Amino acid sequence: MSHNTFGHLFRVTTFGESHGPALGCVVDGCPPMIPLEAAEIQAELDRRRPGQSRFTTQRQEPDQVKILSGVFIDERTGRQVTTGTPIALLIENVDQRSKDYSEIKNSYRPGHADFTYDVKYGIRDYRGGGRSSARETAARVAAGAIARKVLPGITIRGALVQMGPHAIDRNNWDWDEVARNPFFCPDAKAAQFYEEYLDGLRKDGSSIGAVLEIVAEGVPAGLGAPIYGKLDSDLASALMSINAVKGVEIGDGFAAAALRGEENADEMRPGNQGAPTFLSNHAGGVLGGISTGQPVVCRFAVKPTSSILTPRSSVTRTGGEAEVRTKGRHDPCVGIRAVPVGEAMVACVLADHLLRHRGQVGQGPSWPFEG
Amino acid sequence: MSHNTFGHLFRVTTFGESHGPALGCVVDGCPPMIPLEAAEIQAELDRRRPGQSRFTTQRQEPDQVKILSGVFIDERTGRQVTTGTPIALLIENVDQRSKDYSEIKNSYRPGHADFTYDVKYGIRDYRGGGRSSARETAARVAAGAIARKVLPGITIRGALVQMGPHAIDRNNWDWDEVARNPFFCPDAKAAQFYEEYLDGLRKDGSSIGAVLEIVAEGVPAGLGAPIYGKLDSDLASALMSINAVKGVEIGDGFAAAALRGEENADEMRPGNQGAPTFLSNHAGGVLGGISTGQPVVCRFAVKPTSSILTPRSSVTRTGGEAEVRTKGRHDPCVGIRAVPVGEAMVACVLADHLLRHRGQVGQGPSWPFEG
Amino acid sequence: MSHNTFGHLFRVTTFGESHGPALGCVVDGCPPMIPLEAAEIQAELDRRRPGQSRFTTQRQEPDQVKILSGVFIDERTGRQVTTGTPIALLIENVDQRSKDYSEIKNSYRPGHADFTYDVKYGIRDYRGGGRSSARETAARVAAGAIARKVLPGITIRGALVQMGPHAIDRNNWDWDEVARNPFFCPDAKAAQFYEEYLDGLRKDGSSIGAVLEIVAEGVPAGLGAPIYGKLDSDLASALMSINAVKGVEIGDGFAAAALRGEENADEMRPGNQGAPTFLSNHAGGVLGGISTGQPVVCRFAVKPTSSILTPRSSVTRTGGEAEVRTKGRHDPCVGIRAVPVGEAMVACVLADHLLRHRGQVGQGPSWPFEG
Amino acid sequence: MSHNTFGHLFRVTTFGESHGPALGCVVDGCPPMIPLEAAEIQAELDRRRPGQSRFTTQRQEPDQVKILSGVFIDERTGRQVTTGTPIALLIENVDQRSKDYSEIKNSYRPGHADFTYDVKYGIRDYRGGGRSSARETAARVAAGAIARKVLPGITIRGALVQMGPHAIDRNNWDWDEVARNPFFCPDAKAAQFYEEYLDGLRKDGSSIGAVLEIVAEGVPAGLGAPIYGKLDSDLASALMSINAVKGVEIGDGFAAAALRGEENADEMRPGNQGAPTFLSNHAGGVLGGISTGQPVVCRFAVKPTSSILTPRSSVTRTGGEAEVRTKGRHDPCVGIRAVPVGEAMVACVLADHLLRHRGQVGQGPSWPFEG
Repeated sequence: MSHNTFGHLFRVTTFGESHGPALGCVVDGCPPMIPLEAAEIQAELDRRRPGQSRFTTQRQEPDQVKILSGVFIDERTGRQVTTGTPIALLIENVDQRSKDYSEIKNSYRPGHADFTYDVKYGIRDYRGGGRSSARETAARVAAGAIARKVLPGITIRGALVQMGPHAIDRNNWDWDEVARNPFFCPDAKAAQFYEEYLDGLRKDGSSIGAVLEIVAEGVPAGLGAPIYGKLDSDLASALMSINAVKGVEIGDGFAAAALRGEENADEMRPGNQGAPTFLSNHAGGVLGGISTGQPVVCRFAVKPTSSILTPRSSVTRTGGEAEVRTKGRHDPCVGIRAVPVGEAMVACVLADHLLRHRGQVGQGPSWPFEG
Repeated sequence: MSHNTFGHLFRVTTFGESHGPALGCVVDGCPPMIPLEAAEIQAELDRRRPGQSRFTTQRQEPDQVKILSGVFIDERTGRQVTTGTPIALLIENVDQRSKDYSEIKNSYRPGHADFTYDVKYGIRDYRGGGRSSARETAARVAAGAIARKVLPGITIRGALVQMGPHAIDRNNWDWDEVARNPFFCPDAKAAQFYEEYLDGLRKDGSSIGAVLEIVAEGVPAGLGAPIYGKLDSDLASALMSINAVKGVEIGDGFAAAALRGEENADEMRPGNQGAPTFLSNHAGGVLGGISTGQPVVCRFAVKPTSSILTPRSSVTRTGGEAEVRTKGRHDPCVGIRAVPVGEAMVACVLADHLLRHRGQVGQGPSWPFEG
Repeated sequence: MSHNTFGHLFRVTTFGESHGPALGCVVDGCPPMIPLEAAEIQAELDRRRPGQSRFTTQRQEPDQVKILSGVFIDERTGRQVTTGTPIALLIENVDQRSKDYSEIKNSYRPGHADFTYDVKYGIRDYRGGGRSSARETAARVAAGAIARKVLPGITIRGALVQMGPHAIDRNNWDWDEVARNPFFCPDAKAAQFYEEYLDGLRKDGSSIGAVLEIVAEGVPAGLGAPIYGKLDSDLASALMSINAVKGVEIGDGFAAAALRGEENADEMRPGNQGAPTFLSNHAGGVLGGISTGQPVVCRFAVKPTSSILTPRSSVTRTGGEAEVRTKGRHDPCVGIRAVPVGEAMVACVLADHLLRHRGQVGQGPSWPFEG
Repeated sequence: MSHNTFGHLFRVTTFGESHGPALGCVVDGCPPMIPLEAAEIQAELDRRRPGQSRFTTQRQEPDQVKILSGVFIDERTGRQVTTGTPIALLIENVDQRSKDYSEIKNSYRPGHADFTYDVKYGIRDYRGGGRSSARETAARVAAGAIARKVLPGITIRGALVQMGPHAIDRNNWDWDEVARNPFFCPDAKAAQFYEEYLDGLRKDGSSIGAVLEIVAEGVPAGLGAPIYGKLDSDLASALMSINAVKGVEIGDGFAAAALRGEENADEMRPGNQGAPTFLSNHAGGVLGGISTGQPVVCRFAVKPTSSILTPRSSVTRTGGEAEVRTKGRHDPCVGIRAVPVGEAMVACVLADHLLRHRGQVGQGPSWPFEG
């Protein structure tokens, strides 16, 4: 990962600011002959789209994606397929509401990238957060939709598992519930509670953090390039790169620190068709940086939006005192819409590692080995 | 990061197995004219060296480092300096105790990379864990010693802040204490407790996890290459790549999920000589992927060693049932010696970002801007 | 360089096919605060634009460029400047003349990428050559226009120095002449000859090769990252990546093979302000992979267009016999328009190396050293 | 390629100076389960070894290679195989003859990297050329020996085809002859002439350039990652990175500039088992950056050694006038020993592209396509 590109063989480069003419990405290295329609990418974008409930920013963006390159009609089947050349995706910005930026352009929102972009570059597009806006994540979701198509048989799903200090009850986990509430929450009861809870926070002009969980099922054993391209290392990097993320864990994560060796080590038994059966999944599907064949389980923590109505002390661009209060259309819990983004990042990492593994090892060994 | 290399401008490639003839690394891209003696690298290696207390593996490795290239005597000063060409470091393995590997070579330790290396590559050097051994981290520490020299004015220190479920009392934090106990623990009282605690675990043939914290002070504002080369993204990747790490956080990390916007956002006031004063550091020194000038604070969780005496269910290489019990010299809390390793990784990431920032931006803007 | 991205710190990713909706590029890592207007990029594109004389393809493409991101108005000066974030450039395809592709889509033009794209990917966009079309080079020229702005004080100019077997007379070299004839030829007399010569080839339904020379003046000494990121190594890679290029040389190039040591080695004398004066430039401005401060001189050979009217033997996609004859709008000497493309590639390589050098070495040493 | 690493999936990092304790390389990303013995690497090194005839430097270096990591005994076969982890190779420097460097350390050999290393880094190891010495190429040859093992069915051979202005007679080409004379020359008659010719140059205290040709047979069609990872682009980069190389061509190279379209385009006819038969190979086995299945043919030009006995004008480190005359053990035609080095670089590029192609495309399409 470097600059605005991530991945090695399945590579994604994103561009665009919140209030520029457009944002998008170039997906390079995608295998050829994969059926791909804009509508499939659109379906993923629609899950992330703002303005779909009162709990997300009211900015109205259709987030309509166009494929500019890298696909062609396969005349043998009549389907549009990838050609192995770079796939450029474009999303035009529509609702760049003209607005008074006088306050934000000369002073820095505490907890926001405003200050750091200025101190690094000497200039920043302050409109809507510019490049540091969560709008950039639309490009990630679009890329992730393509990555999913590179991963047949792998299901990548995400869910919000904690809002503020309130964790869900894992006994209530129902994947189908995730699509039924505006929080991507798998626990219907918790979702009901969050509705009231978030209304209260919005009324207070405040915001709140969240914890998200992404689960990838069907990941074959053997993905990961130790030592410095470990699968979990790349997952950590990918998830930490999402706006406002402050922590990442795999499997038991921080809880593993409190475990004894015999509690933590996932025991194995002979399974069907060669694959071993694991009796637990504390490892979250990764050992020594390589996938085990179990579900890959990651969690990441999203801090509360720093754009809040409550006034906070800050400084101006010229070093003076300021008090900042962010009016406008902001997500009270930016973690909510990070669920499809987290899924997309996991999909991109897995697609990259699938190709890298195939590059080094080909079909790989046939395990278990003969006696 | 890819394969066995990490970093972009300050690049580290490591090699070597636990029981091969030697391990080491090549540090490429180091700026020239930096005074560098093998003794400086040795000093860092000695902090990580095994066998220094009864709480770490009893393997006796002098871990003597040799510089094979990339340095020369500067005749103007008579000092040995870096030349800008690759610095190769070699550490010979000495104590590869001849031992019976019959059990481990045909079956997999639960919770260990044994299985995943075999299923990926079809072969593994099973002696002492081979490439997946924590011995590889000696090469990281050596590279980190060089990275530190690229970072004048930056202090990078680490500490163990939790062993098993037992966190230290942060009110007792004393950096000087870290060197005084065998746990790199900044809380003398906790260290005393850990001594007894770990003795108990050793007697049980068990092991335990830990949480480490790394703090980098003096980091200039402006380091980090958003979006996918964010400083925290690269820190997460680097720390997650350390053996047995399952979680990484920056600043408040997972605790930030429970905070409200006004609690989390670090307020700023005009400070001296341009730099703003922050009234808190929930962000851990990184906003929008770019350093703020505050201390960079990371924590990472290390799972318990999976090599334990307690027998666990497993499978053999040929897919049969097995019971595994690891005799021999293992760290009961592998997290302890991960402290210098974590420092080294943070140093390498910062060195790389310092060079990358200088490459793109040169001296950078002069902030605050004139009125 | 990999896939569709080149450069390390100054990185360019291109996308797009000849007859798709648009092509373009993302320029990432550009330093901030560089004044940049679309008109500046347009000026370079206009030099490469087709249909400007009867000696290039008659396809009518305005090649109008739009900047989608990465720039903002600097309110201190009122000028549009780069922000340090990715600069996306878009060029819409306009003249995708509907045409009969029945012949080309099922058989392969000899000497063309038709066959290799199919055999690699199993699919190709055959319209106008798809991704392998010289239209892709418009994106390079656009990126090069930005690279030039990163290189103040450096002048990069190119010229056609040979068409078919006919080399120019170097005694007639006049840089001003390059813009006055449709061949980018610095020798007015040769240009006159080429006019007639090329008319003859066009009438024959044939095509011809060419040799181009790019000269970069004002390049500071010290650029280049030996051993595998040598300046000339990256120049060779960049120039060889241009469509139809079959050879690259630096300085005397292949002629150096015939020289004796004392003829080839450029002698040096003390010069002004520290820089040495070289008495010749056989080296083409690069020694040991690092720039000497002399002009960097490269040449590259472009083969004749393989799309010709003369029928040639070939095979079909299903392995049968075919005879191919390419009608339509093709450059009889594709080398002509490669001049601005070559300049752009050299500019991108130099920009990347300038940033890489600054990253590793900062301001660099002050040479000559004190006594 | 960057710094001292080249390749993407098959990656080689080299280190070491001419007169340091050792040089070597780390080969990372090598597929596992490939039988590999040090003796196989040694055999290639022995072809490049100095001091084997009076026409190469008289430095006596056994160039004995040790494998430090990345291999293990496969107990199923009893053979030593690669494990998929980094393979570190070490070659100790033995004959670092103590010598008077007073002249060379304070002034610069014209045509040599002496000046540019100093002006870039402010320091250089002047003993024997330090990092810029041709000794570094031993590490390339060692890496190439491993690359060859990744390329079963591919034969990579090189030959000297021109010394000074004297080209061989291609009608006399005999691959078996290459091993019989000290020039790697496939034309026995030319070799005889070179013997006398080079003796004369040696007596004059001069040196001479050369042109080498590398041919890779058995390369499958489909290798190459257009646009910026084209196979020929990476070959150009790899060959240009060899010491003293000033030009690279593929297929007809610069001669292609003089050809008409119908002369240059290699016609195709249906062949056996799907692969087309080409009626000529002007393209040198690469079209559009992708291999055609024909032999890949590259040539590169090596300038004469700049270390000569004839005195030349130069400058000192402090900017004064100097006259330089290089005594000591130098190759009068450094191009001779570049033959195994060129083969090694081609092998490494092909190995990398084979893995990259397999990564993106897997087994690839089955061409010709069904009707």
